[in-house]
Amino acid sequence: MPIDRASLVPALKNIATRLRIDSIRATSESGTGHPTSCMSMADVTAALFFAEMRYDPKDPKNTESDRFVLSKGHAAPILYAAWAEAGAFDRAELLKLRQLGSDLEGHPTPRLPFVDVATGSLGQGICAAIGTALNARRIASDYRTYVLLGDGESAEGSVWEAADVAAIDRLDNLCAITDVNGLGQSRATMWAHDMAQFERRWKAFGWHAIVIDGHDMTAILDALDEARATKGQPTMILARTIKGKGVSSVEGKDGWHGKAFKKGEELDRALAELEKQFVPVPDGGPAARLASRITRPSSPPRPVEAPKPIAPPDYKMGELVATREAYGTAITKLGDADARVVALDADVKNSTFSDRFEKAHPERFYQSFIAEQVMVGAAMGLAARGAIPFPSTFACFLSRAADFVRMAAISNVGIKLAGSHAGVSIGEDGPSQMALEDLAMYRAEPNYTVLYPCDAVSAERLIAAMAYHPGPAYIRTSRPKTPVIYSNDETFPIGGLKVLRQSANDVATVIGAGVTVFEALKAHDQLKAEGTLIRVIDLYSVAPVDREALTAAARATGGCLITVEDHYAAGGIGDAVAEAVADAGFTVRRMAIREIARSGKPEELLERFGISATHIIKEVRSLKLEVRSTKSERV
Amino acid sequence: MPIDRASLVPALKNIATRLRIDSIRATSESGTGHPTSCMSMADVTAALFFAEMRYDPKDPKNTESDRFVLSKGHAAPILYAAWAEAGAFDRAELLKLRQLGSDLEGHPTPRLPFVDVATGSLGQGICAAIGTALNARRIASDYRTYVLLGDGESAEGSVWEAADVAAIDRLDNLCAITDVNGLGQSRATMWAHDMAQFERRWKAFGWHAIVIDGHDMTAILDALDEARATKGQPTMILARTIKGKGVSSVEGKDGWHGKAFKKGEELDRALAELEKQFVPVPDGGPAARLASRITRPSSPPRPVEAPKPIAPPDYKMGELVATREAYGTAITKLGDADARVVALDADVKNSTFSDRFEKAHPERFYQSFIAEQVMVGAAMGLAARGAIPFPSTFACFLSRAADFVRMAAISNVGIKLAGSHAGVSIGEDGPSQMALEDLAMYRAEPNYTVLYPCDAVSAERLIAAMAYHPGPAYIRTSRPKTPVIYSNDETFPIGGLKVLRQSANDVATVIGAGVTVFEALKAHDQLKAEGTLIRVIDLYSVAPVDREALTAAARATGGCLITVEDHYAAGGIGDAVAEAVADAGFTVRRMAIREIARSGKPEELLERFGISATHIIKEVRSLKLEVRSTKSERV
Repeated sequence: MPIDRASLVPALKNIATRLRIDSIRATSESGTGHPTSCMSMADVTAALFFAEMRYDPKDPKNTESDRFVLSKGHAAPILYAAWAEAGAFDRAELLKLRQLGSDLEGHPTPRLPFVDVATGSLGQGICAAIGTALNARRIASDYRTYVLLGDGESAEGSVWEAADVAAIDRLDNLCAITDVNGLGQSRATMWAHDMAQFERRWKAFGWHAIVIDGHDMTAILDALDEARATKGQPTMILARTIKGKGVSSVEGKDGWHGKAFKKGEELDRALAELEKQFVPVPDGGPAARLASRITRPSSPPRPVEAPKPIAPPDYKMGELVATREAYGTAITKLGDADARVVALDADVKNSTFSDRFEKAHPERFYQSFIAEQVMVGAAMGLAARGAIPFPSTFACFLSRAADFVRMAAISNVGIKLAGSHAGVSIGEDGPSQMALEDLAMYRAEPNYTVLYPCDAVSAERLIAAMAYHPGPAYIRTSRPKTPVIYSNDETFPIGGLKVLRQSANDVATVIGAGVTVFEALKAHDQLKAEGTLIRVIDLYSVAPVDREALTAAARATGGCLITVEDHYAAGGIGDAVAEAVADAGFTVRRMAIREIARSGKPEELLERFGISATHIIKEVRSLKLEVRSTKSERV
Repeated sequence: MPIDRASLVPALKNIATRLRIDSIRATSESGTGHPTSCMSMADVTAALFFAEMRYDPKDPKNTESDRFVLSKGHAAPILYAAWAEAGAFDRAELLKLRQLGSDLEGHPTPRLPFVDVATGSLGQGICAAIGTALNARRIASDYRTYVLLGDGESAEGSVWEAADVAAIDRLDNLCAITDVNGLGQSRATMWAHDMAQFERRWKAFGWHAIVIDGHDMTAILDALDEARATKGQPTMILARTIKGKGVSSVEGKDGWHGKAFKKGEELDRALAELEKQFVPVPDGGPAARLASRITRPSSPPRPVEAPKPIAPPDYKMGELVATREAYGTAITKLGDADARVVALDADVKNSTFSDRFEKAHPERFYQSFIAEQVMVGAAMGLAARGAIPFPSTFACFLSRAADFVRMAAISNVGIKLAGSHAGVSIGEDGPSQMALEDLAMYRAEPNYTVLYPCDAVSAERLIAAMAYHPGPAYIRTSRPKTPVIYSNDETFPIGGLKVLRQSANDVATVIGAGVTVFEALKAHDQLKAEGTLIRVIDLYSVAPVDREALTAAARATGGCLITVEDHYAAGGIGDAVAEAVADAGFTVRRMAIREIARSGKPEELLERFGISATHIIKEVRSLKLEVRSTKSERV
């Protein structure tokens, strides 16, 4: 039975007051946090959680539930207070805010079942919200996505990437709210309370924009109604609010960002002022009764459809295929087998070959245009709702989304990033198009899987493996065509490696990945012709690495390990191998790019920057000399 | 003597035709490149270089010259063609495009004297242009900045960050042009030729917007006049163009992005069609005569004012000062001494203490609001024009600008990045606010200096050092207050380290930086009390590291090296030290954060994530046991 507005409005107002109180109490208990950023959005939050959204507080992960993303993650205390108010957990937990051991952290993370993606780096939540909205379309669910932004946050470019994509995709199941409290951390925001600035921008970007007083509960409810009724475009509700609303001593005051009320008189006075703001409710019932009236999702959670078997690789040994091309084939096959697989592009689908996926599964292919942040952010939202998203572009341009890569690590969300055109082996386009620090970026995160295939078979197998491997993952592919060296039925477990050449008399182990595997093989053949044998390893799994196999290779080859990589010297394969064999007392000779790269033909660049077969041969020869001289010293 | 329009327009048209021809010839010679992206912007380029800009082709770095930034860097061939046409170098060089050994690379880099910053990652040039425009204001020069963007590029959020900042700063010395050719790499752009979409957005963002036919030379000249006359706001000229303009077989055709005309018939036919487009010029003179009429800068290049001495650190030993606070003090002192020093903020000036600089030097303090990409991009432009820019924010949020960090490396431009609030030692705010992969990001670039002071004295000294050290640099500061351990006159050369504790009987060397230096010192004292001596090193210079001193320490302490860092395990101090001592055959025990962090009190987190004094002590004890057992094995 719907509640009439006359009862609803005062009941929601009381909830808003309680949310303010809870936000203040929790932050004061912690001695840290952002109470005033919570207070400005309390009315909107009360309306969303207790009059608008359809969800089950005890089953927040329900596939059919409306989603709420707190893009201004520093207002976490009021998010927690709202879920407690809804009955998701005991309100007493709120006072453990920010304590080690409590999942009620300073900013929301998916350690909490009602958080889809970690927020706290501004401008990311709205990108993730696009992902959850696209996912509703994917599974043909009527769930809606709500995302709440700060006004200062609107300066982030990623917000405008999101604005464009949401408008182009006509995401009318997406409703954003900006809490325009006018104050940033250190000063007034760019436009303070000039609501026309916001309205102009959002309208220009193709959104339905509604300006309201964010403390007028009726206006909030009307705007949410209007958003729900708006078809063909997303809605942005621009709520003019007062930072610190409810406690007169801090309302609209600079210098109160990220500052808790001091326990004692300061806190007591604030709480006393808020307590007085509870209003009588016409039907006499307590506001809390609203929690039991939260609308549940319109349909039961849907089961996950089991994937079909994935078509195996189908190549001829020696066939020349770029791993980026194998990527296009692999995700298309995955998409054939599993309806959860989706692909995202940033206008390079004809270079990454993700256009093959688009052709086969146009309804699950999302074009972000040249906007990598929203591409990765949307993938985070999609992954959080059960999709298996493959966002891909040139590996170097994924660095545009480095902060999203970081937040995806914190979210531990299963995005499957693919970066093509890695390294100097791309050739003439020059350094701006060469990823030479990508392995360092992903390896730095403790929970990323990092893969780097050298041929089409391993590429396809690894892409299938990463799709079903939990957590975030990255695969690095190359521009040049390389020969197929593995048979179609070869397996490539994550965390493994392949020993491609070995003998009982190997004087060194050369460890490559991607294009350098072929340089190592060439070096092997030439050295063999002159009577020197080396072991050659394809380190297709860069994180995790096969510690035992690397250590065993070191032992078997006199402790001589050489890594060779189409990547800068720090943070890549050399460091990965060095760390793996350090405990056993082995060190590594690192061959890598050691200066800013430049344009040229691929093979010229491998030579010029010291990672070609010629250089490997030189390195092996120098090692042999060293070993000899050490031996003669001993004699 | 100004040329009348009737002569100028056909002369410029002929230059445009020649630029098209040169762009095509060069890319065909290379067999790679983006001729059609050049052809759409040929008319605008001709107007800019031969009727609008004031510069000396033989002295492109002149401090008073108008600047041109090619934000759509893939159109490099026409940039080169324009400079050749202007007389900067021999036109024959153009045919060496993209060859190893030529500086005419696939995308522009500052290896060329007329390029301020490398472009080729879209959406960055306009941010750098804001920097060059701000620099004109800093030195009170009337030079103007022109920046040419692609239409696809407008999807990048960084473009809208730039749009906001330029409007707020009222940069009427900035004129942007968007080459709206309607086609991206893989498909039509987001808005194709819907010029109203562009106009609406740029107007909403506070720019003066002019829509023109980008192939109508008179319209182009009029628009440039209008831009120059516009006061109080930047101008965006939206030029509707045809991709591949001039060669009918490719005009407006999809599938021709990044594709050279094949030498032979395809090329010949294209050139023949273009040759026919030369028009008669009323005064009969060849179009090339325009080059000799280029307007020179209005004033002679200005000398650099010599900096005054920098006030030395002024702390008491043992005083508690956060390194982030020392940062604020240090840049303020630098600003007092040197008018080239500027600071940029992203609305956290009260946390990074850059507000001290703002107070002292408000005219050299640039507020980017919460928009890290434009902050770093503008710093690149400022640095390219002789300023010494310090952009700062939380270290984790600098990752938002990772791709700019990368392009700054390629540009080898002297930006001085400062990231505060590094590591788990920030405490309660939680992982979204903790930089735990920043050292990996900067170390990966081969030409970044990476510094990490532990106390206020070293912080101040290192900030002064990085200001005058060539190339890009990063300094990592911490949130907690730490005791001053160095005397005010101590020196800290880049590439050095400090041995804080040593004896002849040290059983191990513990290498820390920042907050972990104090954990190492605590461990030292406790271990000493039980009769175990360790060496303690403050690795304040993370890149470059002092290879010799680290190796010497390893030799002196039985090869036992332990690194301990408030950073994830990969890419940071552990890897830096391991790489440095590898050649001498030493390995390193790495203590670092090995899982996603969480909220808690700083000291609790150091303990929980294994980098506290307690853990160091355990590690040293376990090493001692190992050494003993190895010895007993030998016996």
